[in-house]
Amino acid sequence: LRVVLVAPRNPLNIGAAARAMSNFGFSSLRLVNPYEVAFREARSAVGASAVLSAACEFQTIEEAIGNCTLVVGTTAGTRRELHAPLRRLEYGARIIRKSLAEGPVALLFGSEKFGLSNEDISHCHWLLRIPSRDEHRSMNLGQAVAVCLYELIRDSRAAIPKSKGPPPAATDQVELFTSLLYEAMERSGYVNPRTASSAKLKLRHLVKRLSLSGKDTFVWLGILRQILWKLGQ
Amino acid sequence: LRVVLVAPRNPLNIGAAARAMSNFGFSSLRLVNPYEVAFREARSAVGASAVLSAACEFQTIEEAIGNCTLVVGTTAGTRRELHAPLRRLEYGARIIRKSLAEGPVALLFGSEKFGLSNEDISHCHWLLRIPSRDEHRSMNLGQAVAVCLYELIRDSRAAIPKSKGPPPAATDQVELFTSLLYEAMERSGYVNPRTASSAKLKLRHLVKRLSLSGKDTFVWLGILRQILWKLGQ
Repeated sequence: LRVVLVAPRNPLNIGAAARAMSNFGFSSLRLVNPYEVAFREARSAVGASAVLSAACEFQTIEEAIGNCTLVVGTTAGTRRELHAPLRRLEYGARIIRKSLAEGPVALLFGSEKFGLSNEDISHCHWLLRIPSRDEHRSMNLGQAVAVCLYELIRDSRAAIPKSKGPPPAATDQVELFTSLLYEAMERSGYVNPRTASSAKLKLRHLVKRLSLSGKDTFVWLGILRQILWKLGQ
Repeated sequence: LRVVLVAPRNPLNIGAAARAMSNFGFSSLRLVNPYEVAFREARSAVGASAVLSAACEFQTIEEAIGNCTLVVGTTAGTRRELHAPLRRLEYGARIIRKSLAEGPVALLFGSEKFGLSNEDISHCHWLLRIPSRDEHRSMNLGQAVAVCLYELIRDSRAAIPKSKGPPPAATDQVELFTSLLYEAMERSGYVNPRTASSAKLKLRHLVKRLSLSGKDTFVWLGILRQILWKLGQ
């Protein structure tokens, strides 16, 4: 993937784009006709990433997208008629992932103020839109790059739970906990002798709903034993 | 959802967090113990969003997360032992979405330099990790907020194609286009008379693979007719 920033003006945004690329594992950054001072400042900033130092500069979009087999432009989608199909990021990213298996893909971001021009868009096979709110579509450049790259590396299988946390406590340990707790309740006068048997059942359900882990139960038993000891004095 | 920034230092990051919230339709921003100058500067910045002007300031985390039924901390996950379950964003966001139906959820972001402290983390039910690269985990604060909120509003159904673009051209229009093109090829001497019949078939397949839309075919026919007229002169 080539991340192509067209005419960026703000060194902080250039730096932020490079950082997001590094975070998500993309390395090819191309700048078309950047504001010279901004590019220089971004490059000399402390902690400028390897991505930034390897960034290439081009005079025209044509040069920057040269050998790419797919060219995708990003847009807030607020504009006048667009002469290219517009796809939501969730779907567009899927297509980009597939295309990357076949050849280099260019992802274009326009300048902070104006976005991509009609001339820029004429080079795009289609346009990508981050699903932001209709009332506030336009995103910060660095954030837009981060969100697009995140969607590209996102793992939809990771949305499905695998493990349910630490191993649960064994039943006998939970029952021991329940008994000790009940004893503490009795000793402290919480239990009404007339409803004692139903109280014990209720407590067992209550404890079960705590979903105690084995490790935690060990700690709880220690706490309870100490309280019981004090109550017994 | 309450977006809680703990001890943010940079006005640009506070502003960027507010902008991402506005982009993705979240309105409740809370700042715990922010660097005062940063908060003031962010607020007075030109174009500060409604989110920012409505932001509340708190002295402690406890106050900021007050009535929330779920508290989730964000972390780069690079740190020493974490005393809370760690979930990837794709899965964690699912849980947050469900919890939001039941009560307010707090999503905590630590300071730019140090992230959340162990004390902060002790208030969290679990931790969220953006799946950034092991070699460069730590994200810019504004970008991290944007990516998390995007995942929360992401529509997984939108990843499935619905329409395949503009309506395709009718078969007779495509055949007309093929015939006119063939005629132009003949007139310009492209077709070898000995292989003429197979050339026509090949051309038909070639045109079919263009997946012409009805609208575009109309334009193409106009272009072809003009070329044919010129070739006939």
